[in-house]
Amino acid sequence: MKSGKLQTAVVGATGYAGLELTRILLRHPYLLPPLLVQRSAGSEVPRDLAEVFPVLSGNGGYPLQSLSWPALKRQGVELLFLATPHEVSRSLVPEAMAEGLRVIDLSAAWRLRRQEHRAPYRFEDEDSVSAAALMEKAVYGLPELHSRRIREARLVANPGCYATSVILALAPLVEAGLVDEQRGIISDSKSGVSGAGKEPTARTHFVSVADNFSAYAVFNHRHVGEILEQLQLEASVLTFTPHLLPIPRGILSTIYVYLKRPVEPRDLEATLRSFYEGCRWVRIFPSPKLPQIQSSLHTNYCDIGFCLAEDGRRLVLVSCLDNLLKGAAGQAAENLNLMYGWSAEAGLA
Amino acid sequence: MKSGKLQTAVVGATGYAGLELTRILLRHPYLLPPLLVQRSAGSEVPRDLAEVFPVLSGNGGYPLQSLSWPALKRQGVELLFLATPHEVSRSLVPEAMAEGLRVIDLSAAWRLRRQEHRAPYRFEDEDSVSAAALMEKAVYGLPELHSRRIREARLVANPGCYATSVILALAPLVEAGLVDEQRGIISDSKSGVSGAGKEPTARTHFVSVADNFSAYAVFNHRHVGEILEQLQLEASVLTFTPHLLPIPRGILSTIYVYLKRPVEPRDLEATLRSFYEGCRWVRIFPSPKLPQIQSSLHTNYCDIGFCLAEDGRRLVLVSCLDNLLKGAAGQAAENLNLMYGWSAEAGLA
Amino acid sequence: MKSGKLQTAVVGATGYAGLELTRILLRHPYLLPPLLVQRSAGSEVPRDLAEVFPVLSGNGGYPLQSLSWPALKRQGVELLFLATPHEVSRSLVPEAMAEGLRVIDLSAAWRLRRQEHRAPYRFEDEDSVSAAALMEKAVYGLPELHSRRIREARLVANPGCYATSVILALAPLVEAGLVDEQRGIISDSKSGVSGAGKEPTARTHFVSVADNFSAYAVFNHRHVGEILEQLQLEASVLTFTPHLLPIPRGILSTIYVYLKRPVEPRDLEATLRSFYEGCRWVRIFPSPKLPQIQSSLHTNYCDIGFCLAEDGRRLVLVSCLDNLLKGAAGQAAENLNLMYGWSAEAGLA
Amino acid sequence: MKSGKLQTAVVGATGYAGLELTRILLRHPYLLPPLLVQRSAGSEVPRDLAEVFPVLSGNGGYPLQSLSWPALKRQGVELLFLATPHEVSRSLVPEAMAEGLRVIDLSAAWRLRRQEHRAPYRFEDEDSVSAAALMEKAVYGLPELHSRRIREARLVANPGCYATSVILALAPLVEAGLVDEQRGIISDSKSGVSGAGKEPTARTHFVSVADNFSAYAVFNHRHVGEILEQLQLEASVLTFTPHLLPIPRGILSTIYVYLKRPVEPRDLEATLRSFYEGCRWVRIFPSPKLPQIQSSLHTNYCDIGFCLAEDGRRLVLVSCLDNLLKGAAGQAAENLNLMYGWSAEAGLA
Repeated sequence: MKSGKLQTAVVGATGYAGLELTRILLRHPYLLPPLLVQRSAGSEVPRDLAEVFPVLSGNGGYPLQSLSWPALKRQGVELLFLATPHEVSRSLVPEAMAEGLRVIDLSAAWRLRRQEHRAPYRFEDEDSVSAAALMEKAVYGLPELHSRRIREARLVANPGCYATSVILALAPLVEAGLVDEQRGIISDSKSGVSGAGKEPTARTHFVSVADNFSAYAVFNHRHVGEILEQLQLEASVLTFTPHLLPIPRGILSTIYVYLKRPVEPRDLEATLRSFYEGCRWVRIFPSPKLPQIQSSLHTNYCDIGFCLAEDGRRLVLVSCLDNLLKGAAGQAAENLNLMYGWSAEAGLA
Repeated sequence: MKSGKLQTAVVGATGYAGLELTRILLRHPYLLPPLLVQRSAGSEVPRDLAEVFPVLSGNGGYPLQSLSWPALKRQGVELLFLATPHEVSRSLVPEAMAEGLRVIDLSAAWRLRRQEHRAPYRFEDEDSVSAAALMEKAVYGLPELHSRRIREARLVANPGCYATSVILALAPLVEAGLVDEQRGIISDSKSGVSGAGKEPTARTHFVSVADNFSAYAVFNHRHVGEILEQLQLEASVLTFTPHLLPIPRGILSTIYVYLKRPVEPRDLEATLRSFYEGCRWVRIFPSPKLPQIQSSLHTNYCDIGFCLAEDGRRLVLVSCLDNLLKGAAGQAAENLNLMYGWSAEAGLA
Repeated sequence: MKSGKLQTAVVGATGYAGLELTRILLRHPYLLPPLLVQRSAGSEVPRDLAEVFPVLSGNGGYPLQSLSWPALKRQGVELLFLATPHEVSRSLVPEAMAEGLRVIDLSAAWRLRRQEHRAPYRFEDEDSVSAAALMEKAVYGLPELHSRRIREARLVANPGCYATSVILALAPLVEAGLVDEQRGIISDSKSGVSGAGKEPTARTHFVSVADNFSAYAVFNHRHVGEILEQLQLEASVLTFTPHLLPIPRGILSTIYVYLKRPVEPRDLEATLRSFYEGCRWVRIFPSPKLPQIQSSLHTNYCDIGFCLAEDGRRLVLVSCLDNLLKGAAGQAAENLNLMYGWSAEAGLA
Repeated sequence: MKSGKLQTAVVGATGYAGLELTRILLRHPYLLPPLLVQRSAGSEVPRDLAEVFPVLSGNGGYPLQSLSWPALKRQGVELLFLATPHEVSRSLVPEAMAEGLRVIDLSAAWRLRRQEHRAPYRFEDEDSVSAAALMEKAVYGLPELHSRRIREARLVANPGCYATSVILALAPLVEAGLVDEQRGIISDSKSGVSGAGKEPTARTHFVSVADNFSAYAVFNHRHVGEILEQLQLEASVLTFTPHLLPIPRGILSTIYVYLKRPVEPRDLEATLRSFYEGCRWVRIFPSPKLPQIQSSLHTNYCDIGFCLAEDGRRLVLVSCLDNLLKGAAGQAAENLNLMYGWSAEAGLA
């Protein structure tokens, strides 16, 4: 490391998650300013990130450079962030690792162990031996569940935003054996529009979203596989329904669970608190107080609250996070901090 | 009726539902312009509805008069709409009926037969004989379920907005005996802010609502009783979670049901269509197409769609309506049309 | 006319203004349901307007047919509405008129008499004799200014939305000779996003618009020419700055004028009222009460209010309208009503 | 200073600006966590700021203490921030200064030198000798204009949000003698709702603001006095029209000026850049690029851009800032940094 600070690079800084990531890395105390890399080149392509995001206007400048492995090596890059579409990550990650770089990939390319869960993505290299080998090395980057393995990882697959909100709410209950899986788990999840990406489409047009609200991808959203794998659930147990909120960012999941045996709210709260002891970025709300989108907006927190019916068995969990921070760029920074033994707060507080 | 047209009056036109109702009645082909009545008087009180709602500015004028039974009789009023808080409706309805008026009450005052369901409202006259007698006469004003009784009714209790969206989605399935009540029914419902009324509160402040989304009243929303009564469900079967959407109006309910036996989407669609045959204001969407808030906004429709899991038993229903129209004023006009034998479209198309 | 009702057709019903126009025509008492025409054909193209706008879902169906002049003649069409891009209108109008149809064109194609004002549009047929001849016949469809000529017109050029809001606010003062043009006129105008059309672009993406507000096209917006021509102003007199509001629809123009001589608010109000006497769709607000976007939203009104400084010469006018109604489809219906001698309210009240 | 860090206190942390200020002070490298003080006491009053703002939920706690001068002295407070209504600041500031505290007051209480400009506030102590003496000591806290005096100040009157946006855009042109004051200056300004404060009113109700836009306080907004004093303009020169935007935060002012002599865009840009050389928190955009609300949102920047007409004399300036940061709490932190000789970035970058 030059000057004792780490040199990183970001591919895909021109997207919503890429911008957030860049801003975090820029203020991170143990990092040099990240190199900003884009895959395409040419006259149409922006040459500075401030052209894309006016909020970055001004003095310094945030030059975008074309992707070149030799250049990145020459510039001393040790770790690469990919905030790219999953097909792109699928092809870039093997190259980056062959160059000896550690990688944190924000896409879904390397999150899923079971082939049936990767099916919705239709990866072209699905049957290759090398992809299978890489998949073995990839660590699912949810710090609250896998911190030990993330520390050693060369390739971290940063979790999906919806998946993070659902897994973190359910993991303590599943681990405690409290969930009556026979009765099914329902996650009714709602996301702001930045979750749909920056591509202008009929669906993301302001007039389509404002004054509106809609469900989509019922029974076939791609994040379901992540949730099932991480919680080790059968596919038939989980019903996951995503919805599009008329807000720029934020996710709230309302999760319905039946417990195997009656519990008291205070015991449930204790179970949650105990599971997340020492976790910097999860907050448990005292029942019946519930988090809302604004609780965690522009922060890296995942906020979790719950209400129990009088029978002590019908449970409603509410889980909130900022899809661009704890749901993407913030969690990527957490993984970075784990990989280099830094404080969980570095760059995030 | 003067000039062959009916004279109606509206108490509470200064609220959101009251305004919508007034606008419907003003363009209704079989009505004289409604008299606009307010309970309070004094110098602070608006004298014209256009002072409250600038959209009514202009030529005509919409004078507000103080409530006086003799005046209403003198002006030839035959039917009274109440768009008032439930405690107010609870005290005004007996007086109005004693005056021989037919009443359509948009509040919750006379919707609930079972005393336990009225408990959350804490009506002061709960134990009176006269209230019990009136309650016997009240008809729950959901035209799709009770049209025959509404035609004859002297007192119609117009349904709640959330309740309408949930009952209409579930009624055909419950009637067909398809719902596995043992596994529970979940309605994850979302409403625009006008559903919370016009009173300025910390909760309805623009800065609290915009860029936000939140669940509230988990396990204890007042509309639950209506749903249980109309669908004849045990309280433990239904979990109803309302949420506040950052939009002015519209309700979307995502409803989760397990069916007793596997069905095909086309058969389920046929069940829904058959149940609502001849119903002017319910639209069934062909699966897997789902309605969204914008589908029914500014219309009197309740739009219903669904997705079935591959097992043919896990069912997600989506039901949408405009809380101020099908969820309040529009449905009140439907009830009016039934009571006088007019077309279901009158004033609404 | 079949059954005594007029058969019209709409090209471009799949756009925002086209939808509003279609809904107006469908409820218009003197019209048959309009034929809905699209220029393109093929398997990708929607076959029913309900596919494009779910709010139209249900019973009837709104079939879209390909453009064919013989078919339109056979179907008895007498008047054609064009809600198409201006280049398309520029080529379709001559054809339609050659077929003997009357035309109301919602685009800018035939609004501008002076060639310098047409320059920003770069019409390909700019130099043709036939275009010049047609331009001579076109009537600028602002009913408050040109009702007599609109009645006889074969081709009505429906005004721009911004232009309508500015012209209607200023016309009475200009006519009264009150405006000190030496000191300049400033219109600071703000529009909802539907004014930018339905095409998804980076600029209309929800995340770009929400929580944002921006000026654009300073000193070079295309509507300036309309305002100058209609008010007979020198180009250097008017500064027009459009802005993009984070709302789906509505325009508010704040207009700054210095008067040649001091006036009293009541006299100014009288001037405005007198100018618009008998005009069904302009409302003058009593100063200092000002209209706001919600005043005229979902109505065909242009609402005008003002504040005068104590010196009686510095004047701030505020003018509001719904860009899809008085700013487009509603005004088109007004023009239709004039052309056939119907009430100004037909289809609009 | 304990541990070499400064102890500050904030009165009014429960308001919008107070919250932002608290968050800045908490991360400020040279400060101890600020003491959070409220004037009222009792059982209704929140005891922790996290009760008011769920975004602060969690570990630490942000206790609110009642106002007591001896307690503040005992706790080592040296500087007091007041984020209170102006009448409150008017009475607290003399007490605080008598205690030897330095004060940064975010209200309008001490901003205005000329009595006529204070008139709209109707201060009760207007005629007192002590208030006049204090007013002499107060420094208007706009760092770009008054940094030298702020450094020495015991009482800083933090500028209004609208005033900051207008003064910063105009000051370089006024100083350069470019503005043709005879022709008038117009500032058409637009603000998000947090500028109207946290009090729930009919005007800040979500349903009143969403899908709406409105002008208010035409010719009589209280911030006009600040602009006139700072720019030394005659009252008749400036027309200032504030508007309410349907967004939570952000201000954009569109400012219209006629120049005394024609200038080139590059010269004007040079004039602006030169004026703000060394100013950390003003950004000049290269014409014709304009800032928008999102440019400066959640930052402490005031962003300024402009367009010149071809004649080089008609000028449109656009100035943007976050009303809670550069328009309030951020600017307060800048003043703090000046008063203690710290970097302009401390707590803000």
